[in-house]
Amino acid sequence: MTVEHKDRPPADQFVVGVDFGTLSGRAVVVRVSDGAELAVAEYAYPHAVLDRELPDGTPLPPDWALQVPGDYIGVLRKAVPEALARSGVRPEQVIGIGTDFTACTVLPVRADGTPLCELPGLAGRPHAYVKLWRHHAAQGQADRINALAAERAEPWLERYGGRISSEWEFAKALQLLEEDPEIYDRTDRWVEAADWIVWRLCGTYVRNACTAGYKGQFQDGGYPSDDYLAALNPAFTDFVTDKLDQPIAQLGALAGRLTAEAAAWTGLPEGIAVCVGNVDAHVTAPAATAVEPGRMVAIMGTSTCHVMSSDRQGTVPGMCGVVDGGILPGLWGYEAGQSGVGDIFAWFLRTGFPVEYAERAERMGRTPHEYLTELAAGQKVGEHGLIALDWHSGNRSVLVDHDLSGVVLGLTLSTRPEDVYRALLEATAFGTRTIVEAFESSGVPVQELIIAGGLTRNALLMQIYADVTRRPLGVIDSAQGPALGAAMHAAVAAGAYPDIRAAAHAMGSARPGMYLPDPDRAAAYDRLYAEYRLLHDHFGRGANDVMHRLRRIRAEASA
Amino acid sequence: MTVEHKDRPPADQFVVGVDFGTLSGRAVVVRVSDGAELAVAEYAYPHAVLDRELPDGTPLPPDWALQVPGDYIGVLRKAVPEALARSGVRPEQVIGIGTDFTACTVLPVRADGTPLCELPGLAGRPHAYVKLWRHHAAQGQADRINALAAERAEPWLERYGGRISSEWEFAKALQLLEEDPEIYDRTDRWVEAADWIVWRLCGTYVRNACTAGYKGQFQDGGYPSDDYLAALNPAFTDFVTDKLDQPIAQLGALAGRLTAEAAAWTGLPEGIAVCVGNVDAHVTAPAATAVEPGRMVAIMGTSTCHVMSSDRQGTVPGMCGVVDGGILPGLWGYEAGQSGVGDIFAWFLRTGFPVEYAERAERMGRTPHEYLTELAAGQKVGEHGLIALDWHSGNRSVLVDHDLSGVVLGLTLSTRPEDVYRALLEATAFGTRTIVEAFESSGVPVQELIIAGGLTRNALLMQIYADVTRRPLGVIDSAQGPALGAAMHAAVAAGAYPDIRAAAHAMGSARPGMYLPDPDRAAAYDRLYAEYRLLHDHFGRGANDVMHRLRRIRAEASA
Repeated sequence: MTVEHKDRPPADQFVVGVDFGTLSGRAVVVRVSDGAELAVAEYAYPHAVLDRELPDGTPLPPDWALQVPGDYIGVLRKAVPEALARSGVRPEQVIGIGTDFTACTVLPVRADGTPLCELPGLAGRPHAYVKLWRHHAAQGQADRINALAAERAEPWLERYGGRISSEWEFAKALQLLEEDPEIYDRTDRWVEAADWIVWRLCGTYVRNACTAGYKGQFQDGGYPSDDYLAALNPAFTDFVTDKLDQPIAQLGALAGRLTAEAAAWTGLPEGIAVCVGNVDAHVTAPAATAVEPGRMVAIMGTSTCHVMSSDRQGTVPGMCGVVDGGILPGLWGYEAGQSGVGDIFAWFLRTGFPVEYAERAERMGRTPHEYLTELAAGQKVGEHGLIALDWHSGNRSVLVDHDLSGVVLGLTLSTRPEDVYRALLEATAFGTRTIVEAFESSGVPVQELIIAGGLTRNALLMQIYADVTRRPLGVIDSAQGPALGAAMHAAVAAGAYPDIRAAAHAMGSARPGMYLPDPDRAAAYDRLYAEYRLLHDHFGRGANDVMHRLRRIRAEASA
Repeated sequence: MTVEHKDRPPADQFVVGVDFGTLSGRAVVVRVSDGAELAVAEYAYPHAVLDRELPDGTPLPPDWALQVPGDYIGVLRKAVPEALARSGVRPEQVIGIGTDFTACTVLPVRADGTPLCELPGLAGRPHAYVKLWRHHAAQGQADRINALAAERAEPWLERYGGRISSEWEFAKALQLLEEDPEIYDRTDRWVEAADWIVWRLCGTYVRNACTAGYKGQFQDGGYPSDDYLAALNPAFTDFVTDKLDQPIAQLGALAGRLTAEAAAWTGLPEGIAVCVGNVDAHVTAPAATAVEPGRMVAIMGTSTCHVMSSDRQGTVPGMCGVVDGGILPGLWGYEAGQSGVGDIFAWFLRTGFPVEYAERAERMGRTPHEYLTELAAGQKVGEHGLIALDWHSGNRSVLVDHDLSGVVLGLTLSTRPEDVYRALLEATAFGTRTIVEAFESSGVPVQELIIAGGLTRNALLMQIYADVTRRPLGVIDSAQGPALGAAMHAAVAAGAYPDIRAAAHAMGSARPGMYLPDPDRAAAYDRLYAEYRLLHDHFGRGANDVMHRLRRIRAEASA
């Protein structure tokens, strides 16, 4: 479907990108020729996250997190027309729509795409709803999936750093089967929300290569075998054949044309291009122009997601996954992450920002973050005498252990809040360096970092990352990276660009090398990083399992 | 001089105890028959601690801490008459005076006891002043003293856990010799302030067995040999003979009779008994009735000092010292300590008590300490999931390493200030248990703990200590433990009691077993203590010297 273009597309063509987040969806109207964002509109999901009860009051057990699929349609009906109206763009100037979603966010549907929770009599059945990415009640199933895969040496396991997550498609489906077999039986398709929304837009169910690979363990042309599934649970044997398997489309491909129904929802012209689905983190890479091998994008917010394309296929210990075409068609897409980053800084402000500081910050007209950052910025590397481990929310990469916990070491009677704050900023930078080094030592080079997400506002943090990783740090230009990335994919699907690379060059934008490593500070950080790694390996690789034991003791004491 | 008494002394006899602290002196008038404290008066030293400059403006280097001996005389002239007046006791009812002092606090004097700093022309010479216990500028000398003693296997070294402190008499004297030889030459006697004040009261220089042993390395009838001193510095060879050696008197012995001059200062009758000097921590033991072997007294304030008498002589690794008659004549007196206790809790309140907590505490009419204690008291053992190392001010016993630093491990995004606060309380209890176990495993039993000092007010802390150490916890009755102990010694010196034991039974007082260990909590703490010890030994005994390295990095960065 791709058309070759030599020239820049005309300036009066536009695409719409829609980013489906955890609590709301955002629609952005983007000019095809240069990626200019003309308008944005947001729609908060009325049901937000169901983690205590269903809409009818049915209570939910701990660790559950569901959503209501109708809320996603609300984004199409509200945010898209609103963004369009604000932009001043006429509907007929829009040539395509693209979407991105949280993942793995997955739901059971009938053969026509109707969510089971919308069927008569099923509104009170938890398993009939969308399981949000952060639904963590399938850990038992995930543990069995991992243990059996390791025992049988399943070839796909190493593509996920040796361990798959309870968040993913197979764990959540197995939980469904084992806890509500009736709903499982009535499930015709087990669909990623990223693909379901595209299905709703164009009437065609096309599976995107990104979630198929990262969340569905699709590797080298196949899923985990029936044989393996049978060993997990005999009733699970045909899961792939019956409910999961579907043609897989590359990112940026045309999924279909906007239906009359979806045109009515969105106010966009019927028949325009609808792009195959995307995942929010991964789609940010081209929005940040990271389309060459070795340009790692870190989306830094409450947590950090690292995505990078490479022409090398490596087995990187502790990464989240490597998927052929998972980020860009034709390259290996790598994903890694840190489960706590901005969350840790926010925790510190809640607990470690005393009255005198709050008063001084207020007098100076600074937010607590700004005030602590100013104080911390005046320090030399190592002056606070501290080392922290950034595991307050566990460790996603490279240890893949959510029962680890945070540490602050080196405290004295003269340690001040800004000292601990800076040590925590640095600890997350050491965590990123650990990930970068895991890639490099597995033969997957990382030349440059490009940062997206809310934490790009903290210049001290950015400089620390450049110094600690000894790499030039670029920063994405857009505040709506995922939606812009989705819009770029729409432009490709509509034929305005031959591929994502071309679209990224024209529409994406990042300021490269905004922060450059300072050789002296980098050398000073090498010494601190060596201390971080000693503690990281001591507490993270079993030499002293105190963190696991403390967690068990805590659970027993709280029981 | 001791007189045997079968009966209780008459109720109209009184003694005065004077406690010379770091910033002030306190005089207490005490009834001999039952230890009742009739009145107390305090006098703050006008010059407090000289740690930046001398009174004439001469600047002082870092780590110096000096005092002015005339300030001590001020306590005799102001606080003693004031306490006497408040008590309603007539001077002729007072039969003796006793004193206690910080130690090692030491000064250079002429043969008649005149401090060198009072001589014409020497007011601008730092080395002519009193060196306060916390003068830490003789570390270089202490290091050499330790290295040479270890090399020569000096027999006294093991009596101090293998390492003497830079605070003690020899290190401070060697610093004087090497930095101001002229003042050293003009020094006739190098005198503990504890003995100098007694000399001022009765005109006789008698050295007390406590400081001679704990601070002057007097062991088995002798000081470190001339031969050893010559190897340290040839000019130091005759230090003991020329400037230190003096008859040593047991605690509670009569030093002499109150001179006319001192009677004029104090308003007490000339000729009453003056007792030999005492040290503040050690003299608290009999005030808390800890006169039997195995009753350990912990004086808990900003730091903790542990003192205990025993009939067993043991070599306890990492203790501060063991001295024959160091606390009670006829028993081995042991001393150990924790360099940061209340100081660590105060540090946490300065840095980890956020605005919302401060506001709630104020609304409830609670101090921050009270509020956090209430919140922490509601927790089950282990519920916070944390382990801390209480080394924010280094470790005095049993590691004897002031370059160690504090740790908090097990932090999560749900960790609250009261969690860390409780973990810090517990860490200091684990520190005390480590000391108790060092005694026990060296064959020196510890049956019971009696707590004195300001932290006895915190009932949660006291209960934690009972549970963690699995020992009944007594609490001293007096708020003026050291002064009461000094007064008891005066009563013995005056002949009102045959010995300290008898005086302690009549005049001292503690509520024994005020806190009893709870078996369930004690068992739960055993698991946490095992984790503490793992971390304690890992970071404290060289497996990972990260704390030393961080301190060096910090020093270089700050330079």
